[in-house]
Amino acid sequence: MAKRSVVELIRHKRDGGAFTADEIAALVGGYTRGAIPDYQMSALLMAILWRGMSRAETVALTLAMAASGEQLRIRERISPVADKHSTGGVGDKVTLAVGPLVAACGLPVAKMSGRGLGHTGGTVDKLESISGFRSEFTQDEFIALLERHGLVISGQSSALAPADGKMYALRDVTATVDSIPLIAASIMSKKLAIGPSHLLLDVKVGAGAFMKTKADARRLAETMARIGEDAGVRTVAMLTAMEQPLGRAVGNALEVAETVAILRGEGPEDVTELCLHEVATLLTMAGLTRNEAEGEQRARRAIRDGAGLAKLREVVAAQGGDPAQIDDPGLLPQARWVGMLEAPRSGYIAGIHAERVGMASVRLGAGRARKGDPIDPAVGFVLQAKVGDHVEARQPLIAIHARTATAGKAVRAALLAAYTWSAEPAPRPPLLLGSVSGAGAEHPGEHSVSATPPRAKNGAKTR
Amino acid sequence: MAKRSVVELIRHKRDGGAFTADEIAALVGGYTRGAIPDYQMSALLMAILWRGMSRAETVALTLAMAASGEQLRIRERISPVADKHSTGGVGDKVTLAVGPLVAACGLPVAKMSGRGLGHTGGTVDKLESISGFRSEFTQDEFIALLERHGLVISGQSSALAPADGKMYALRDVTATVDSIPLIAASIMSKKLAIGPSHLLLDVKVGAGAFMKTKADARRLAETMARIGEDAGVRTVAMLTAMEQPLGRAVGNALEVAETVAILRGEGPEDVTELCLHEVATLLTMAGLTRNEAEGEQRARRAIRDGAGLAKLREVVAAQGGDPAQIDDPGLLPQARWVGMLEAPRSGYIAGIHAERVGMASVRLGAGRARKGDPIDPAVGFVLQAKVGDHVEARQPLIAIHARTATAGKAVRAALLAAYTWSAEPAPRPPLLLGSVSGAGAEHPGEHSVSATPPRAKNGAKTR
Repeated sequence: MAKRSVVELIRHKRDGGAFTADEIAALVGGYTRGAIPDYQMSALLMAILWRGMSRAETVALTLAMAASGEQLRIRERISPVADKHSTGGVGDKVTLAVGPLVAACGLPVAKMSGRGLGHTGGTVDKLESISGFRSEFTQDEFIALLERHGLVISGQSSALAPADGKMYALRDVTATVDSIPLIAASIMSKKLAIGPSHLLLDVKVGAGAFMKTKADARRLAETMARIGEDAGVRTVAMLTAMEQPLGRAVGNALEVAETVAILRGEGPEDVTELCLHEVATLLTMAGLTRNEAEGEQRARRAIRDGAGLAKLREVVAAQGGDPAQIDDPGLLPQARWVGMLEAPRSGYIAGIHAERVGMASVRLGAGRARKGDPIDPAVGFVLQAKVGDHVEARQPLIAIHARTATAGKAVRAALLAAYTWSAEPAPRPPLLLGSVSGAGAEHPGEHSVSATPPRAKNGAKTR
Repeated sequence: MAKRSVVELIRHKRDGGAFTADEIAALVGGYTRGAIPDYQMSALLMAILWRGMSRAETVALTLAMAASGEQLRIRERISPVADKHSTGGVGDKVTLAVGPLVAACGLPVAKMSGRGLGHTGGTVDKLESISGFRSEFTQDEFIALLERHGLVISGQSSALAPADGKMYALRDVTATVDSIPLIAASIMSKKLAIGPSHLLLDVKVGAGAFMKTKADARRLAETMARIGEDAGVRTVAMLTAMEQPLGRAVGNALEVAETVAILRGEGPEDVTELCLHEVATLLTMAGLTRNEAEGEQRARRAIRDGAGLAKLREVVAAQGGDPAQIDDPGLLPQARWVGMLEAPRSGYIAGIHAERVGMASVRLGAGRARKGDPIDPAVGFVLQAKVGDHVEARQPLIAIHARTATAGKAVRAALLAAYTWSAEPAPRPPLLLGSVSGAGAEHPGEHSVSATPPRAKNGAKTR
């Protein structure tokens, strides 16, 4: 470090300058150990939000954050070993299904997941609807589970990348969250601290996602893919649509039940297709299959022969959960009140605003308005029809699972406001919007499903 | 306030939005009483530096800062009553001379002045080189002095505009000083808390000033003039050059001595002309003279008949200082060592870099590198020649007043490095660069001296 003072470094970024890797390491290290106060870091974060960061700066920031605590370096023990991350969507249970399928196909998966906040749920929150399921482990336990079962799904360890936790808490209260380099560094620092050999990122885009526009999502995907590649992790970032909820179930136990359905080959088309595509991508990235068509065949077989479901059952049991609830999802926590919201009119569903559905589920208690809020595993929604479907007035639209009739009825207006209708047939929107590899090249046509959206393939009405 | 949270307000400014006056009042009030933490305010300040503030926002910010503590409202007691402020320059003793002259001409002047920091000195620091001079008063004492003598020059009261003190300290360590609206609000909030009827601002521009470019200085001048006008204070902001030091003396007691010389009609041409112009402007603004030519005649008479000097002597005595040191500046603190720096070559002086001269005076002990540093009243420089003058090699260039020979000799190289030379006659640079009134109109030709720079009028060599 050229021995610039902190205020000089803030001024440098404010005026559009770039930092050296040593300067970034000094800033992240100083902040993590408390030598740099919050008020200087927040001014610096706002300057970074304003001026941006180069690829080299973003990589240096991510590496410095990853190095701020313990580092698992799991690819030095097991290789290949995969991780999979979604930026968060409504009804997004893909990780729950992809992890067991990939592991069942022979590629170990080491997954740490944050808690859900706002309108999207967290993978660990969903799994904790299973009685006894544990998500906190020591490093040794985490690695032992991975080595023994080829899959571990735990909560985020606060010993990994502590700089990220401290910086994110500050960003949250200073309006400095919405910066592509900062978002990318936050996500990737936790991944690099684990240290997989292969990483698949699912960047959600649309009304129900944190990235509202495809341009922003693409920038985030490219930035994360480059960080991964520069840090020696083979990385692919997919862009997928998050306009309407993914699948049919929204809510923790309801989504576990839908995951079991997917692994039984009985899941909704859209989320099943996305799962198959993700499994195929990971297997092919890691060299276990020659191409994605072969990868998808392999994934379908793991559904057909029950290997994926068996792996989920095995891992649930290994992490202290009750495997009977996987065998019979009817044993998962059940809401005391279930009411059917009927369609207010006849017509084609032209849109289901995912964020509004997500916020309604938070009102029921399925998610957290604030960090640390308790969640109710049983409540949520099951959509009876999706975008492109035709429904008649009074037909079932949404099954509402709530603690009380009062709570369930209270969200009906908000749910109905999430729907837009059309008298004309409405198109089923594409789900996969593209993908980016670490080299920065986009592969729009590489995956058949990106050109041909999953739902359009068979056009099945899923009611 | 539309009840946006603080983080929502930061986001709003970050995204280029404008605040209502109520929102600004809530932010400034919340910060002053500690309800809003430093880390949110510093992020907000960086967002303001980035996005700027409208005229209405800047006025609201200034009024909120002025209202954060006690308010003197002196124009409700005495009217008209003037204030005069300089953004700070090297050798700038203009306030010391203008205050007594204006008061001697019948317009009361209520002046609070901050301490000097960095390469420029503060008015109160200079006056405190007079034995016994007091600069801290209660509000009642301040007003009593003003009413009795028509002039008071005190230090800045921490009871006025405390939000400014707290915000400035934060800006200083977060690289958020350099924002025109924030600088303007900082200066003007302290003026509005005093509450004069008329205000003359001297915005310095050039290598020795905080504003390095005329464009920035003009923006600051316009911003401050508009704030004053919107807040009901008749305001004129002048732009004056600060390339070379003003006058010949740089250093506290040395500048008091030069002030006495100005008031005796024996001062350097440049600073004398600027003083006469400022007096004329204030008298005319307040309606005591019909125009600036008449104002300048009135000012010259107050020098000729000794009324200005008598007023300075009266006020020094009223504030506890020794009037004998005004009668005989030889009684002011004297440096133990005085050495003459000789010209290293023959030629015309083409430039004297004011900031470098100022920094050399700080090295001698005449100013503060850090807040709270003690200063030595006796040390400094007396320039023997200025830009446009011709000197022969070995002729006296600068008299260095220092504590020791070692200290004095140690700054010689830095001083010589401040000079640029020319074989051809070098022009004497204009001093007055324009002025702006609160209505936003610029008056480049209104003042004769702005078109015809003071020094060029007679072209006298001042050696």
